[in-house]
This record gives sequence, C-alpha cells and structure tokens, in this order.
Amino acid sequence: MPAVPPRSGDAIFASIERVNAELFTLTYGAIVRQLLTDLEEVDEVNKQLDQMGYNIGIRLIDEFLAKANISRCVDFKETADVIAKVGFKMFLGISASLTNWDADGTTCSIVLEDNPLVDFVELPDTCQGLHYCNVLSGVIRGALEMVSMKTEVTWVRDMLRGDDAYELQVKLLKQVPEEYPYKDDE
Amino acid sequence: MPAVPPRSGDAIFASIERVNAELFTLTYGAIVRQLLTDLEEVDEVNKQLDQMGYNIGIRLIDEFLAKANISRCVDFKETADVIAKVGFKMFLGISASLTNWDADGTTCSIVLEDNPLVDFVELPDTCQGLHYCNVLSGVIRGALEMVSMKTEVTWVRDMLRGDDAYELQVKLLKQVPEEYPYKDDE
Repeated sequence: MPAVPPRSGDAIFASIERVNAELFTLTYGAIVRQLLTDLEEVDEVNKQLDQMGYNIGIRLIDEFLAKANISRCVDFKETADVIAKVGFKMFLGISASLTNWDADGTTCSIVLEDNPLVDFVELPDTCQGLHYCNVLSGVIRGALEMVSMKTEVTWVRDMLRGDDAYELQVKLLKQVPEEYPYKDDE
Repeated sequence: MPAVPPRSGDAIFASIERVNAELFTLTYGAIVRQLLTDLEEVDEVNKQLDQMGYNIGIRLIDEFLAKANISRCVDFKETADVIAKVGFKMFLGISASLTNWDADGTTCSIVLEDNPLVDFVELPDTCQGLHYCNVLSGVIRGALEMVSMKTEVTWVRDMLRGDDAYELQVKLLKQVPEEYPYKDDE
C-alpha cells in the first residue's frame, strides 16, 4: 500500500469519464448474444467471456493503479479489499463486500451489492449453464496477474441462476515476487 | 416536440447511472476483436456491428425518450438535432454537431467532437476496410426506426481510416406515419 492513502472509489468514480450505464448493459448483452449465436456451446461462451474479461483486466489495471493512487498492496488480503471497495465502485459505480475468508487468507468471496450487467436480463432455459457475468471473473483474474498474483476466480452464487446474490470466489494460487529488470546497486 | 422543452444532454448525463468510460471502451474493443476472430471477413464484421447497434438502438430509444422528456419531434430535422445535441451527450457524454443538410432536409451529417469508442485503438493493415464504430450507425438506425423513421446511416469520414473527423451521414428513406391501435372515438 502507498504512503498516500488510496482515494475512495466514490471520489474516483466522480472524477473520471463515464458513459451511460444502460448503453454499457445493452452492449454487454449484445456480446453475450453474439457469442451464444457463434459458439453454440454454453461452456465455450463462458470460456470466451472469461478470456475477454482477462484481456480487459490486464489493461484496466493501469488506469486503476494510476487513478486510485495505489502503488502496491502488501498482501492478498489488502489487494482483495481494494478490489471490492475501490475497484467495483470505480469501474461499475457499485459497492462490493468481502466475506468467507479462509483461515490462511488466500481465498475470499466478493459479494456484489448491485450488478449493472444484468439489468433487463432473463436467461432462457437453454442457457442455464451460462455464467452471464463471466467477464467479471476474467477482469479480476487478468488485473491480479498484472500485479503478480495468479488467481482462480469462480462464481459461487449467481442471481440469474436463482441464487440470492452475486458471489465471486477469488483464490490465490501463487504470488510471484515482483522482479525488477535491474538492481538498484548495478 | 413536447410542450415541456427537452432536458439538456448535460443535465440528463449528470443525473443517470453511468460506468467508467475506459471499461466501456475496452469492452467494445473486446467485441470487435471477437468478431474479427470469429467472422474473418471485415465486411461481415461491419454488418454484425451494425446489427448489434440496431438491437441496442431499438431498446435505448425508450430510455432516451423517457429521460430526455421528449414525446415526439415534428420532423426529421428536429429529430436529427435532438440526436446530435441530446443523444450523444446523454449516452456517451460527448457533443456532436449537424452539418451538410441537403436542400429538402432529408439528409444530414453528424460530426462527433470526441469518440470514446476509439481510445487506444489502432487498426492493423489487415483491417483497413473495418468500420470500427459501426455499432453507432446501427444504434441510430434502430432508434429512429422505433420512432417511425426508416434511415440509412453511413460513415463519410473516419479518423481510424485517416480522415480528420468522425462523420456519419443519416439519410431519411421513409417516414411511416404513426399508427395507433385504436381510434379515439371507438
């Protein structure tokens, strides 16, 4: 974590360029529909949405670190906290909370308090296996990989599947120590 | 046009739910990349982006009319004006201007003063025929069809192709008189 405290998600969200949420929701819906048409298999669509999210996440992390005044987090716990409290607010304008930490602090759940991706969405019976919001898991995985944390991100609860919340489990698989291309004394 | 004047695009944009523009830009980029991979032919990608936009436009028009306090426009000229001045501001947070009206007031150009869709985008040589922002032409076409105006929307200038602006030509093909499902005196 930086010496300067990170800015709050609300403050950042208020100061950055934004677009209409409904346009975003409908655009995302258009992607999912397109993938369902092109790929046919729901599992393939899940995989593709996750991959798209990963590609977005590895780029979004730069804006995140820059705008949020975050230089580094000491551990996974702090990192998860920043994602939930600052990241979701900054990008989607929503709050998220952390729960279900395991004993060694390497697995937790992010519970979304709102989810703009799913406005107006109802899944037909043929899409019951679909993780409609799978782009989010990919974004988190991609962004964390850029700060040297290999993670596995999976949906535990999904309201489109009848659950009472959106819950993403984030599991730290490996923390790669940051490598510098040169040493200070060289 | 309504008796109550329409709200300004700025006022509406300030009052509605929004998401981070970079997230939107990257998400849109992910769609285009996906389509290029799946469809291979650039012309097919153009067609698909336009179709996606159409599907978005026919839904977005409802929010537009509701939030902008617009009940109806008297003619194509007024309609185009509202799209440029209110619509682009409300959904993308940008301004657009109208030029190049033809003599009978059925064709005009919308020139974008900024374009959040193309931040960080450079087209490789293999994509020179791509209308990267073709979703926009589809959105306009779809939205106008919902208010009984059949249009043709084409790119005249495109900065990703080396032009000095983004210019969309909107041509009114047919104005269908509004039909009511019942008469007042029935």
